Amino acid sequence: MAKKEDFTPLSKLGEFKLIEELTSNFTLNQGSSILGIGDDAAILEPLTGQTLISADSLVEGVHFDLTYVAPGHLGYKAMVVNFSDICAMNGLPTQVLVNIGISNRFGLEFLKEIYAGIKAACDVYDVDLIGGDTVSSYSGLNLSVTAIGQADAQKITKRSGAQENHLVVVSGDLGGAYMGLQILEREKSVFQENPDIQPELKGNEYALGRQLKPEARTDIVDLLEKLEVIPSSMIDISDGLSSETLHLSQSSGYGFALYEEKIPIDPTIYKLCEEFNLTSTTVALNGGEDYELLFTIDPKDYDKIKGNPNLTVIGHVTEKGGECKLITRDNKLLPLNAQGWNSINEKNY
Amino acid sequence: MAKKEDFTPLSKLGEFKLIEELTSNFTLNQGSSILGIGDDAAILEPLTGQTLISADSLVEGVHFDLTYVAPGHLGYKAMVVNFSDICAMNGLPTQVLVNIGISNRFGLEFLKEIYAGIKAACDVYDVDLIGGDTVSSYSGLNLSVTAIGQADAQKITKRSGAQENHLVVVSGDLGGAYMGLQILEREKSVFQENPDIQPELKGNEYALGRQLKPEARTDIVDLLEKLEVIPSSMIDISDGLSSETLHLSQSSGYGFALYEEKIPIDPTIYKLCEEFNLTSTTVALNGGEDYELLFTIDPKDYDKIKGNPNLTVIGHVTEKGGECKLITRDNKLLPLNAQGWNSINEKNY
Repeated sequence: MAKKEDFTPLSKLGEFKLIEELTSNFTLNQGSSILGIGDDAAILEPLTGQTLISADSLVEGVHFDLTYVAPGHLGYKAMVVNFSDICAMNGLPTQVLVNIGISNRFGLEFLKEIYAGIKAACDVYDVDLIGGDTVSSYSGLNLSVTAIGQADAQKITKRSGAQENHLVVVSGDLGGAYMGLQILEREKSVFQENPDIQPELKGNEYALGRQLKPEARTDIVDLLEKLEVIPSSMIDISDGLSSETLHLSQSSGYGFALYEEKIPIDPTIYKLCEEFNLTSTTVALNGGEDYELLFTIDPKDYDKIKGNPNLTVIGHVTEKGGECKLITRDNKLLPLNAQGWNSINEKNY
Repeated sequence: MAKKEDFTPLSKLGEFKLIEELTSNFTLNQGSSILGIGDDAAILEPLTGQTLISADSLVEGVHFDLTYVAPGHLGYKAMVVNFSDICAMNGLPTQVLVNIGISNRFGLEFLKEIYAGIKAACDVYDVDLIGGDTVSSYSGLNLSVTAIGQADAQKITKRSGAQENHLVVVSGDLGGAYMGLQILEREKSVFQENPDIQPELKGNEYALGRQLKPEARTDIVDLLEKLEVIPSSMIDISDGLSSETLHLSQSSGYGFALYEEKIPIDPTIYKLCEEFNLTSTTVALNGGEDYELLFTIDPKDYDKIKGNPNLTVIGHVTEKGGECKLITRDNKLLPLNAQGWNSINEKNY
């Protein structure tokens, strides 16, 4: 992080100088990027397939807390959550536009760190920054990101295609991002009470990484292509397994049954749940921000994914008009509830 | 505007219910829009040519003042300023994504009026709303918009293509939006001093309309196509004629000479300038927000545009490495300065 003394007020730079300072080290690498930053609009020429496009905003105090989120991580995460939306359509991200609203309490150095995070994500995911806007904000920091991607028309996976008896599959494991947030919130309140106490973060690297530096599962999109599996429906897990399952159910009109014992949870997350007196299943169902992919497949594709360490079958699609249920370890049926973003005034973690 | 008593707190609605309330009356009309709102990403399939894409943010207190801007006009203007960026590339807008950040001081009725303005603009310009995001904001209102457009590759006009002796052309007339703002600011301060005095807006409809309900010159893009003129460079006038001329000059590397007497200004704007003790030329050069198109053409195309009431030749491109100058009515040479968005903390009118 920049030292306190390195503070160049943004008012010292004009808009154009500022944009140049922030974006001059970005290059265009995608064949579909004809023209990037610097004109009234960027120019794209999709090489193949259809174009996917998604926009998401991150607002200080609502989606992130700068007390414990470094600006570089913030820039990285703002990209990843948008790339994840493209993955959720079974596509790969190719371009991105970033609008940043900033108040005068942020200096150039801070903004440069955000852009370093944006650049790191663009490099990792081979995505071109092609445009955006930098505007004043009277309060905090907000990032509004538009991600563009490509996919072959016959490969694109919507939320709506689940059919009866299809299998429900999830990538990776769940609940880590939420437990990372719990640790950060705990250490923040400890610090607020006694600033001399050093934060206790050691041993919790997995959970913290899941919260602070999530990844978009472009590798799963590639894997599905390699395995020759086209999911019948797909969504990314931003609001928790429960809420996303309900989306796939509502969009398709079919019920879903999930098995508690099948939900993949990392051993370190089980341990943390115990420490925080939380139930790991609840954390996986309602925690959110894991950015794993949740999808359904035709049972005939089961052999193709069987035994793959990145994919876990956690349930199946039930009858038309059915409900969404969790089958617990002791064989009880519990209805799934949406616990995601449910109030405009509520903290969306 | 909604009556005070009609206030449905946004906290009463979940995110999905809110999005449905706001967007359910939008339809997809463009052949290139395959899938709109409601999945992880929208799907586009450009029918022809290249894709243009541009993103801009509007922030309360920086870009607009809700004391005198009605929410419907705000929604309309947020669309238009983005469509204008697509026009500036000689393309036509086809799709748009809207991210809105809102605080709890705004109710559903207010947001619905913004969306009514968004819908009006989408209807007028035949643009599909295909996505976006609605998030909490701790302070005011902000809109972050991404516009998408199409144009044939050989028609797309960048800022950089001006050549020596090309003619400088502007659409419509200039300075109106700035004078509209002056009236609104004056009436606001009168009202603040004495709330019983009714605002004096009559007779100033043209200037007020230019400020509150600007239009994107898609008609000029159509006209240029009909006249078989492809500009050598183009930009839209958001920051004032001076600043935009400097952009065309910097991008091409050529100097520009503008004639003061040629700058098109509406008679009602001359009158207002006198009333406000402002020079009309200064207002046209530095006022901004007119969203007219400024472009250069090869002199061989002059006959095609000659006498067209929508287009005025205001100058010519001078030598490589030359400066940007205004030739005044009394034949003096004045250098053009950028007076647009020049400080992150400054009000960008």
